[in-house]
Amino acid sequence: MNANPKFVSATATVDEAAIKPLPNSRKIYVEGSRPDMRVPMREIVQADTPASFGFEANPPVYVYDTSGPYTDPQARIDIRSGLAETPRMPWILERDDTEELDGPTSVYGKARLADPALDELRFDLHRQPRRARAGRNVTQMHYARQGIVTPEMEFVAIRENLRRKEYLESLTQSGPMGQRLADLMGRQHPGQAYGAAIPPEITPEFVRDEIARGRAIIPANINHPEVEPMIIGRNFLVKVNANIGNSAVTSSIGEEVEKMTWAIRWGGDTVMDLSTGKHIHETREWVIRNSPVPIGTVPIYQALEKVNGKAEDLSWEIFRDTLIEQAEQGVDYFTIHAGVLLRFVPLTAKRLTGIVSRGGSIMAKWCLAHHQENFLYTHFEEICEIMKAYDVSFSLGDGLRPGSIYDANDEAQLGELKTLGKLTQIAWKHDVQVMIEGPGHVPMQLIKENMELQLAQCDEAPFYTLGPLTTDIAPGYDHITSGIGAAQIGWYGTAMLCYVTPKEHLGLPDKNDVKDGIITYKIAAHAADLAKGHPGAQIRDNALSKARFEFRWEDQFNLGLDPDKAREFHDETLPKDSAKVAHFCSMCGPHFCSMKITQEVRAYAEQGMQVKAVEFMKNGAELYSKA
Amino acid sequence: MNANPKFVSATATVDEAAIKPLPNSRKIYVEGSRPDMRVPMREIVQADTPASFGFEANPPVYVYDTSGPYTDPQARIDIRSGLAETPRMPWILERDDTEELDGPTSVYGKARLADPALDELRFDLHRQPRRARAGRNVTQMHYARQGIVTPEMEFVAIRENLRRKEYLESLTQSGPMGQRLADLMGRQHPGQAYGAAIPPEITPEFVRDEIARGRAIIPANINHPEVEPMIIGRNFLVKVNANIGNSAVTSSIGEEVEKMTWAIRWGGDTVMDLSTGKHIHETREWVIRNSPVPIGTVPIYQALEKVNGKAEDLSWEIFRDTLIEQAEQGVDYFTIHAGVLLRFVPLTAKRLTGIVSRGGSIMAKWCLAHHQENFLYTHFEEICEIMKAYDVSFSLGDGLRPGSIYDANDEAQLGELKTLGKLTQIAWKHDVQVMIEGPGHVPMQLIKENMELQLAQCDEAPFYTLGPLTTDIAPGYDHITSGIGAAQIGWYGTAMLCYVTPKEHLGLPDKNDVKDGIITYKIAAHAADLAKGHPGAQIRDNALSKARFEFRWEDQFNLGLDPDKAREFHDETLPKDSAKVAHFCSMCGPHFCSMKITQEVRAYAEQGMQVKAVEFMKNGAELYSKA
Repeated sequence: MNANPKFVSATATVDEAAIKPLPNSRKIYVEGSRPDMRVPMREIVQADTPASFGFEANPPVYVYDTSGPYTDPQARIDIRSGLAETPRMPWILERDDTEELDGPTSVYGKARLADPALDELRFDLHRQPRRARAGRNVTQMHYARQGIVTPEMEFVAIRENLRRKEYLESLTQSGPMGQRLADLMGRQHPGQAYGAAIPPEITPEFVRDEIARGRAIIPANINHPEVEPMIIGRNFLVKVNANIGNSAVTSSIGEEVEKMTWAIRWGGDTVMDLSTGKHIHETREWVIRNSPVPIGTVPIYQALEKVNGKAEDLSWEIFRDTLIEQAEQGVDYFTIHAGVLLRFVPLTAKRLTGIVSRGGSIMAKWCLAHHQENFLYTHFEEICEIMKAYDVSFSLGDGLRPGSIYDANDEAQLGELKTLGKLTQIAWKHDVQVMIEGPGHVPMQLIKENMELQLAQCDEAPFYTLGPLTTDIAPGYDHITSGIGAAQIGWYGTAMLCYVTPKEHLGLPDKNDVKDGIITYKIAAHAADLAKGHPGAQIRDNALSKARFEFRWEDQFNLGLDPDKAREFHDETLPKDSAKVAHFCSMCGPHFCSMKITQEVRAYAEQGMQVKAVEFMKNGAELYSKA
Repeated sequence: MNANPKFVSATATVDEAAIKPLPNSRKIYVEGSRPDMRVPMREIVQADTPASFGFEANPPVYVYDTSGPYTDPQARIDIRSGLAETPRMPWILERDDTEELDGPTSVYGKARLADPALDELRFDLHRQPRRARAGRNVTQMHYARQGIVTPEMEFVAIRENLRRKEYLESLTQSGPMGQRLADLMGRQHPGQAYGAAIPPEITPEFVRDEIARGRAIIPANINHPEVEPMIIGRNFLVKVNANIGNSAVTSSIGEEVEKMTWAIRWGGDTVMDLSTGKHIHETREWVIRNSPVPIGTVPIYQALEKVNGKAEDLSWEIFRDTLIEQAEQGVDYFTIHAGVLLRFVPLTAKRLTGIVSRGGSIMAKWCLAHHQENFLYTHFEEICEIMKAYDVSFSLGDGLRPGSIYDANDEAQLGELKTLGKLTQIAWKHDVQVMIEGPGHVPMQLIKENMELQLAQCDEAPFYTLGPLTTDIAPGYDHITSGIGAAQIGWYGTAMLCYVTPKEHLGLPDKNDVKDGIITYKIAAHAADLAKGHPGAQIRDNALSKARFEFRWEDQFNLGLDPDKAREFHDETLPKDSAKVAHFCSMCGPHFCSMKITQEVRAYAEQGMQVKAVEFMKNGAELYSKA
């Protein structure tokens, strides 16, 4: 057995914290067109409306579930074995366009595997990496453009719909009270979608079409069969990415796996492993093998480690080997800073905060040291060849994103964006999936310009933004300064929001920070879905508000993004269990409750204003006659 | 001496928590046109730029300071004596339009004063309340319309400018390096102000004009001489209100005073005392006597207590007496739900969450019980007569604000808003200052409609909104769901944002919640100021980002909204003092720092691209020739 303390701590914590289902929640699987397609959702069971509010049954609500098998009591979780390969392995194999390799083909991957000093740390994987057969292209975009609807596409279509149509239909058919409920739950305000076109029901064919068009991506490396496919595009639900990763200063492998399971428990749709410390390779393996969500990386970070942190010693060969190393582990998308061109670098000298992207600054330093064009740019077609052999998606990095309000939307940033648009065309020529990274720090009035330029210059490839932070003056609260910007840019059309934690600019996030970042960004993403008028997005709001109004405290907690915190906050003031069935709350107390008064108003109103009018007129209510 | 434990706990906590100046901060006073006009600001002292970044002196930055004398080490703080009456008393007296009364004139105020059981609890005030002389109108609006620039108007003009012009001018004049700094600090992105017209420099005459026009208010009761005047209007800095208040279930007087001092320490511009428990009258007295910021209340809450919580037993007489009671204590603005008309009440029956405003539901219940028109509406002119005798400002309450996304912008809400517009005209006929309260729960795409309707129907009277919350699904995080909406509506033109704490919907906020709510709303307000292009708003962002870029950690903390939390977060990962002067941070570690790399890039760039080009071409950089 493995006695490494880092390793042990990893298994221990996942068991305790991330495996328990959320309260009153049940993992369900919606079966697709084939029995091996089981699309996960979370069903939240509700109590009946109490008699005093007019008894009615409140059917369960279905919400998007990123937590994977961890919240499924039927699943056997052992992070030493990793997750089952079943979600995708059969689909990958039956396409018959990949081959199993004899082992890693990268120089570095081979060396790590051969190093006995790493035996204790290494994830014990029993299968070999796969790669496209010679001449084949295994990207979802390639299939989509051939007119093929892959199981992955069907999976995300089912997943995006969240059984909303079935839910409302079954309500409607359950009698007059159910019809009233269906009307209440299903009604929502028209959205303002800024050119997005979200159909009332997502079909597999719609997914295929969006991917073929380049407007959406399914990041799903053939070496990450454990992934539950998800889609990133502006005609789908807005997604959230969580960054994890150790640094030279802190963190162990166990902590990173724990952060990943923690991040997906609270709603992270993808996770980027930004590790920069020792054992990057091994950490990544553990994370991928245990991750049901797509994993992204910034390969240049590891490449830099390989040359002992000296940017000028980087080379295309080292970078290329790193891409292959990571692609064969199963990384689903790579951030590649190919738009940091030599001629843009001097533009950053007049900035207030220069280059704040780590990848951007590495490439800038390389460009200046060699006075050569960025090798990621000059070798871009070769990179595409690698991407399409494993179906790794591009996340074209914004290496010149602004690091302060002052630097927002400047020449360097916009020059890079235009370059990313050109690179998108090249990637698409290879049928490689692409999303585009965006800023950064941007004041509210300049956010829309970012979105509009991105759509125009990158031909509607999905936008993936960090925040943006709408002011610089609140270190310690940058999840909020950026959540404001994220909600806005999500509304305008950004497909995925990269979270920012309260520790941004100050330190590395711990578990609490990861959760705060995720929840803040789930709020931003959902607010954006509502604003865009995503069909059915309001069902959860409506259900929660109904529970709130009817003093169904437990349902209010459980329908929220964080049932634990809601319950904890409630119990701080009214800790007794009886308070949770009370028809009042601590804010106003038992004799002074607006909700209660409203119940009475409703009762009055339902008796009919006409009757009351006559009655009160008799009692001498003189003012009514003037009204 | 007073042995009441509630009383003692109040003095003890204020002493400890709220009196210490913020780090590296100094209270300064800018003198106005008369020696007794001392306008407070906070000066944040910065370190010099280290030599490695090109030495330069970074002059202090001036920020808006709501904390009053509490953060002035020169001030003698004793909450038993209250704050000095000097800020405004001389100005009130010299206008010679008020008279000192023999004592409270309200029935209730007299009774409380005469009750020996309250001796221990009562604030020991040595002066009598004042009231306008017969036939006089003492509102700031009245003076403004007479063409009089009051000291209060001059005070807020100086306060809003924050010495920005002087700061930048003195920088410019301090030599070439200072000129560069002035350029860096002063430059900001053009705003998008949605029809607001903010002058580059606020003059007393501009303030007068805005108040005369009804576009701004200075809430400043003649019985609250302790107040440091502030202005609420969309051509000024966006303000933040913090609610405090005990309930039947929790809280003591001491806690409420403590919450008030705590709220203003972190930036609360006004404080609403929403107490509903015992000793409302005495609590309020303690809060007002110790508050340098305007205090708002919802008088109907207390009136309801007087009739033992039975809304139907309320009457105009009881309400009138309550208004006078509170006006003579010095409440600066009253929330009055005069727009909850009888005919709107049945419209709320089809809502998902009915009436969620406490004041709104009380009035609705009264209207239905009596089947009479709202007595606040029918007696509105009499209310105006009281308001103008003390200069209490109206905060026309949104009793029918939506309590869920579902109910946003519905007939009931918009009907009430229109009514508030009509009432504004009546108040203005009396020269009474008015602001309008707004929602509530509103999805992002419907926020702008709220602002546009409010401006049109209420003739540009300042809008004062609660949030709005942009989704219902995150109990425990409603400071964030609403901070998103608050930033947006602030940008569109809302003058003051009423904070929402993380405890919203769940319980009463404690000190941590108050702080989280305030900081979130300061972020929203500042993001809005930046987006509107408020002149000089970006100075603080620029200064903080410069400090961040130069690894001046202490300055980064101190320039932020919450230096304590920023420092605490930083120290969690790199606790040593030496780390705060390190030129790297925990996120990347010493060998991998983008900021550090950027420094090098800048150095390269400054050596001149031409020179480098020649040099590197010689070394065989073949790609440059293709670029």
